[in-house]
Amino acid sequence: MQELLHVDLADVGPASTETDVIVVGFGAAGTCAAHAAREAGAEVLALERSAGAGGAAALAEGIIYLGGGTPVQRACGFEDSVENMAAYLMAACGPEPDEAKVVAYAEGSLEHFDWLVARGVEFDARLDVETQMAPRDTHGLVWSGGENAWPFSEIATPAPRGHLAKTKNSTGWLLMKTLAEACVAAGVDVSYDTRVTSLVVDEGRVVGVVAQSYGTESVYLARRGVVLTAGGFIWNDEMLRRHAPTLLRGTWKVGTEADDGRAIEMAQSVGAQVKNMHVGEVSLPIIPPRDLIQGIIVNGHGQRFINEDTYMGRVGQAALYEQDATCFLVVDEAAYQPNWMGLSATWVCETAAELEAEMGLPAGSLEATVDLYNRHAAHGEDPMFHKAAEWVRPLVPPLGAFDLRPGVAPYAPFTLGGLETLVSGEVVSLEGGVVEGLFAAGRTTSGICSFGYASGLSIGDSTLFGRFAGRRAAQG
Amino acid sequence: MQELLHVDLADVGPASTETDVIVVGFGAAGTCAAHAAREAGAEVLALERSAGAGGAAALAEGIIYLGGGTPVQRACGFEDSVENMAAYLMAACGPEPDEAKVVAYAEGSLEHFDWLVARGVEFDARLDVETQMAPRDTHGLVWSGGENAWPFSEIATPAPRGHLAKTKNSTGWLLMKTLAEACVAAGVDVSYDTRVTSLVVDEGRVVGVVAQSYGTESVYLARRGVVLTAGGFIWNDEMLRRHAPTLLRGTWKVGTEADDGRAIEMAQSVGAQVKNMHVGEVSLPIIPPRDLIQGIIVNGHGQRFINEDTYMGRVGQAALYEQDATCFLVVDEAAYQPNWMGLSATWVCETAAELEAEMGLPAGSLEATVDLYNRHAAHGEDPMFHKAAEWVRPLVPPLGAFDLRPGVAPYAPFTLGGLETLVSGEVVSLEGGVVEGLFAAGRTTSGICSFGYASGLSIGDSTLFGRFAGRRAAQG
Repeated sequence: MQELLHVDLADVGPASTETDVIVVGFGAAGTCAAHAAREAGAEVLALERSAGAGGAAALAEGIIYLGGGTPVQRACGFEDSVENMAAYLMAACGPEPDEAKVVAYAEGSLEHFDWLVARGVEFDARLDVETQMAPRDTHGLVWSGGENAWPFSEIATPAPRGHLAKTKNSTGWLLMKTLAEACVAAGVDVSYDTRVTSLVVDEGRVVGVVAQSYGTESVYLARRGVVLTAGGFIWNDEMLRRHAPTLLRGTWKVGTEADDGRAIEMAQSVGAQVKNMHVGEVSLPIIPPRDLIQGIIVNGHGQRFINEDTYMGRVGQAALYEQDATCFLVVDEAAYQPNWMGLSATWVCETAAELEAEMGLPAGSLEATVDLYNRHAAHGEDPMFHKAAEWVRPLVPPLGAFDLRPGVAPYAPFTLGGLETLVSGEVVSLEGGVVEGLFAAGRTTSGICSFGYASGLSIGDSTLFGRFAGRRAAQG
Repeated sequence: MQELLHVDLADVGPASTETDVIVVGFGAAGTCAAHAAREAGAEVLALERSAGAGGAAALAEGIIYLGGGTPVQRACGFEDSVENMAAYLMAACGPEPDEAKVVAYAEGSLEHFDWLVARGVEFDARLDVETQMAPRDTHGLVWSGGENAWPFSEIATPAPRGHLAKTKNSTGWLLMKTLAEACVAAGVDVSYDTRVTSLVVDEGRVVGVVAQSYGTESVYLARRGVVLTAGGFIWNDEMLRRHAPTLLRGTWKVGTEADDGRAIEMAQSVGAQVKNMHVGEVSLPIIPPRDLIQGIIVNGHGQRFINEDTYMGRVGQAALYEQDATCFLVVDEAAYQPNWMGLSATWVCETAAELEAEMGLPAGSLEATVDLYNRHAAHGEDPMFHKAAEWVRPLVPPLGAFDLRPGVAPYAPFTLGGLETLVSGEVVSLEGGVVEGLFAAGRTTSGICSFGYASGLSIGDSTLFGRFAGRRAAQG
């Protein structure tokens, strides 16, 4: 039997600390929630179970999905608008994304950009076209969601929206260092190495938490509210097996060991509703180099199933959820290079027929796929999956195939489901109201995505809705 | 704000009734739970919100999945064993089915057959090979799970296990009439038109329910336990949107309006854990006639994706979850007949090339699929999807195509996720223990299936684990 997920105020000892707002977790959502609560005049204490700030965001690429015409977008020559961004998000984050959150996110994006800049986040207004991840230099903008690929290119005017703090390589650490320092400078107290184990409730209202630190259990009470920003549950295999078993096949968990889902279950134990618990983002990062997009991605039956120029997260989700985690990238010599992480062709053959035999695919399967692809590619067309013309040309044998199955290629999943929250950060209850005294943001919650995704949407919605949750909590 | 999902004993008025065991719902699981609790010596009251017994099972085909060598199986000439049945179930109910439940189900199957017979269920020991659903006559056995199709035919010795009570057409009504009458004869009290709205708790233990009947609210207390057997949530679109949005595309909800998931949320509100909430069974019943299996099923890209001779539920799940709910059945003249529900070919053309154009598929896509299929079919082989040789022969133009998209063809879903329970029927808590005083079975729970399915497994696990839950509840 584990520790209790919630305890009654009457059953806990005296509080070691009493403050206005307690924020559980000090990552992307937590720093912004704490900062916003402090700005709203509250006394704020953040409790972080690890020894430093940043959470999973500090280890991530650090892309923040922002648009509507940010200074970075404009400097790079792109027009964007709230409506255009919302149209993309409604298509890319579905089916059935949380429309209220999508609208609030698009409408809040420009102001959020300014808020981040005001807290010290710098952006180098240059676009790196080669990657959907962190650029090779300090570039501050990437195409991070397949906005310029089918079907989104036909739904909204394409604009890159993946913003990155100015530093080389993955930028999450710098973003989080900046946000955490700004938060502390604003007067937020932080207690590290402090693991929250239980919520404290009083007549149905959340009034505090119990936490462990260095072997000691303490009670922390919050006069106005508790904000849960403690990450998702990618590091909890038992929860994955129960709610999102597909993600167990992901080999490269995007998160920290603190992403154990306990905050979700603590909230559930006081009547919180959850949403989209089965959903995960799954990146399958093949490029750079983009030349590889000239190849075709096929499943275990030698069939194509997606446009190769789309966002890597769509490829990963499709492969894992719909293609039994079996896919391969087939290229010819003109397209071939080892990819960014050193993956190279496992098989190389003179013909498609030989290649399919080597790969263990059914006789004729890959051959038929290549023939059909080439037939249309000769005209620069891809009527099957709508890859953009610039990447479409007939494949010329010899052909090579990259093995993109889990264990060889990286499948990088994290959970997108969690507590159901309002835009305000209030936590929806099983009965359809809200849980009094409780707020949440980030991957502890179900954000704007119901299934689809673009890189930067998690840090994006964590930071923006983290702010909203902190502000609302400060109101008590 | 809805009614409270649970209320404190101290806050409710005097009880109108006090008994040993309260069973919520009087369908497949409820009748068996009530009966078993009564047999174990408890005073039992079943509360059923509709005006009669039977729940969704009374409207269903009525198949009960039983094996291990039942008298019906043996009379029809099939050998089966507990181990063989368990091997099939572990493969068919996965990935990662609940192994403890699978083993208990296979081990309990013969005794459960006898128990059903002893309660008056009669079986006509004849096999109908033509259907995976209710036979055209009183046959008592069908192949209801693709046991004789790839991959299961290679995993376990094929045996039909879909048992049906002896009557013509759908047999669920007779099964449920028999079970309900036996239950009442055994001394179970039943109150119809009585809708349970809340659980009553006392110091963490479930001690009763609040129910509405004819405008009046009453309190019912249970000295030993409350058993939730109130169906799934296929009739609650809000819950589907939150937990199982894919199922919203199913057009033919298998359930009753009482399958609104409230029992699941009532239990969640007192700390119950849920499991597999995203999962649904989705039948796409194409046959009879089986001649249609000689055709090929293709997706919106003109590609095959499954062996056409498999269980219709696997076709439906694959189509809905993995193929964007888009599929077609392509047949030639020798295979063509309108199917059992009068669906006929929407398009008929002289060649595959013409047919794909008519269907709006990409040029060459269906043609390539038919060519590849025919190439292997000429040798009686299907290396792509392993359809059994008896159904494999080249398709000879002209070709026709059935439109199997939702709205044209029936997609018949119901939810498989729900409360996490032990084999005993005890309800697992968020904290990993059990919720005291609470038990559950049937589609209010997550049963033996984590994704896959065979017809008869829902009535099968509802009735068997319903018995276990009732027996355990009677122990207090």
